[in-house]
Amino acid sequence: MRVSFDELKNEIKRVFMKYGLSEEKAETCARIHTESTYDGIYSHGSNRVPRFADYLQKGWVDPKAEPTLEKDMGAIRIYNGNMGPGVLNALFGADRAMELADQYGIGLVGLKNTTHWMRGGTYGKYVAEKGYVAIMWTNTEACMPPWGGKDCRLGNNPFVMACPGPDGGSPVLMDMAMSQYAYGKLQVTRLAGKKLPFPGGYDKDGNLTDDPGAIEDSMRILPIGYWKGSAFAFMLDILGSVLSDGVGAVDMNAAAKGSCGGCSQVMIVIDPKKTTTAEAMSETVKRAVEYIKSAEPSEHSGGVRAPGEGIEKFHKDHDENGIYVDDSVWAEICAL
Amino acid sequence: MRVSFDELKNEIKRVFMKYGLSEEKAETCARIHTESTYDGIYSHGSNRVPRFADYLQKGWVDPKAEPTLEKDMGAIRIYNGNMGPGVLNALFGADRAMELADQYGIGLVGLKNTTHWMRGGTYGKYVAEKGYVAIMWTNTEACMPPWGGKDCRLGNNPFVMACPGPDGGSPVLMDMAMSQYAYGKLQVTRLAGKKLPFPGGYDKDGNLTDDPGAIEDSMRILPIGYWKGSAFAFMLDILGSVLSDGVGAVDMNAAAKGSCGGCSQVMIVIDPKKTTTAEAMSETVKRAVEYIKSAEPSEHSGGVRAPGEGIEKFHKDHDENGIYVDDSVWAEICAL
Repeated sequence: MRVSFDELKNEIKRVFMKYGLSEEKAETCARIHTESTYDGIYSHGSNRVPRFADYLQKGWVDPKAEPTLEKDMGAIRIYNGNMGPGVLNALFGADRAMELADQYGIGLVGLKNTTHWMRGGTYGKYVAEKGYVAIMWTNTEACMPPWGGKDCRLGNNPFVMACPGPDGGSPVLMDMAMSQYAYGKLQVTRLAGKKLPFPGGYDKDGNLTDDPGAIEDSMRILPIGYWKGSAFAFMLDILGSVLSDGVGAVDMNAAAKGSCGGCSQVMIVIDPKKTTTAEAMSETVKRAVEYIKSAEPSEHSGGVRAPGEGIEKFHKDHDENGIYVDDSVWAEICAL
Repeated sequence: MRVSFDELKNEIKRVFMKYGLSEEKAETCARIHTESTYDGIYSHGSNRVPRFADYLQKGWVDPKAEPTLEKDMGAIRIYNGNMGPGVLNALFGADRAMELADQYGIGLVGLKNTTHWMRGGTYGKYVAEKGYVAIMWTNTEACMPPWGGKDCRLGNNPFVMACPGPDGGSPVLMDMAMSQYAYGKLQVTRLAGKKLPFPGGYDKDGNLTDDPGAIEDSMRILPIGYWKGSAFAFMLDILGSVLSDGVGAVDMNAAAKGSCGGCSQVMIVIDPKKTTTAEAMSETVKRAVEYIKSAEPSEHSGGVRAPGEGIEKFHKDHDENGIYVDDSVWAEICAL
């Protein structure tokens, strides 16, 4: 299915208003879902609309809640998200973190008791397009075994870094979960009757496997870099809690309010005009990109890409042909 | 070889003084190398002494240089390391970052034009033992191919996160390079006639391999999580440069002043007393550790460990039997 930006946004907005969001809030949330879809991040754009509606219906997300200030100390602010829509809370947090960065050079916003922010890259991109550097993450409910264990006790805790692009171009953007593959990727690969490009977890007998179905059955998805990603996910969980005065995976699992229900987010935003000049930053990024691209392409690759660079391919396609939405997802949204 | 803490420290101190460090500076550097060895990080403790002496002799590290303040804006300070000893510059930077955190809740020190800080975990541990949270990294010369490329264009850019331990115990500490294995690990594994536990890179023909010698030959070591670690390493390179007004891998390679010669380091330090209480932090960390340890151990593991937990095993052994130093390394240090 191909739809225009406004067609998709308005249909999502209609659904969100039906489930209790004010027109203004529904407009913002629908725009973010549509932008993620336009950027090719279907999993956290159009595909997440039914789940968000479901959470609103179950009362896991409070459509009327607003973030409230809990601590205000120097370059740090802690807000309680009050289980409001994660997208709105995170945009609010990113705005406050930029204000702190304006004042102090660096600012940290801790956002506790919030809900799923959808695509983490949204907020990195948001601040980087305004000229700021971002280091952000969220903790999540447990969905991945820690290294050395069989049972899910770690979140996949997406971690975001963003930097303004050279010459005012698109930001350099990394948005990565700590699991090698998302469950969505396992499902898509299994339905296509394919294997994963690299082992993505253990089967029930503890063998590393590239069979997506075997990993879905065992629920033993692999952290990036084995023990390394396991340690990283753990640090993001506890520092998410500590720096927002919020909770981590253990309490999210106990509360059982869906994916990221009650999660803790950290947004560190830096004004690079305080550390360098716009010209030097642009030059640094441009030369680093040229440098990695000067590597000879490996055997089966299309060459080296800078983080965030894949986006243009989707923009071109979506501009020419309309935004892609999976047929069944579109039908589901329209039926809500 | 087994030696006492003071024996090792004094022998290293003697060497460093011989190569131009003042007695006070040699004492500090020798203590840090000895502490890393005591913690079981031999690769960046005793084993790095000959290389540091070599760099002093070559003039790649200036034994007399002191860091100088270049920018002082709110909660950010940029220092020029002036190619002085990386350990001293990094300790200095960590102290300044804690002062900023005292004042603003969060502080960022960018350290440009510095040299190898040896074990990154040293500085995370240093501030976490004083009650602070650390997010730190260094960029390095290129030693790893970017995803999709054959030639080394990315540093392994060690990334550190640390949090005070529960009940005043050892910090929770992660110190990880972006490569799945260090070259030292490849060498040790090859000399032992063994294979790596998981594929660690590509051979010359582009096949993923667990043969350490084949990877040493191709120099195609693998980033953690394939494309993910490649993107992360790139972000750490450019943000290292941007946030310290310093340089990245491309310029370090051009300058050719050894490993990390002229590198850029970022030290973000946060005072968690501004975000939560000591009791809540201790409780959060303790419960998260208990939670991951409650996972059933996987087939071939000794159970789940929290980041930084391995250290006690080394302390016990070193307390009982003296600090382990590789025979040939000890001979080399003594002969310097």
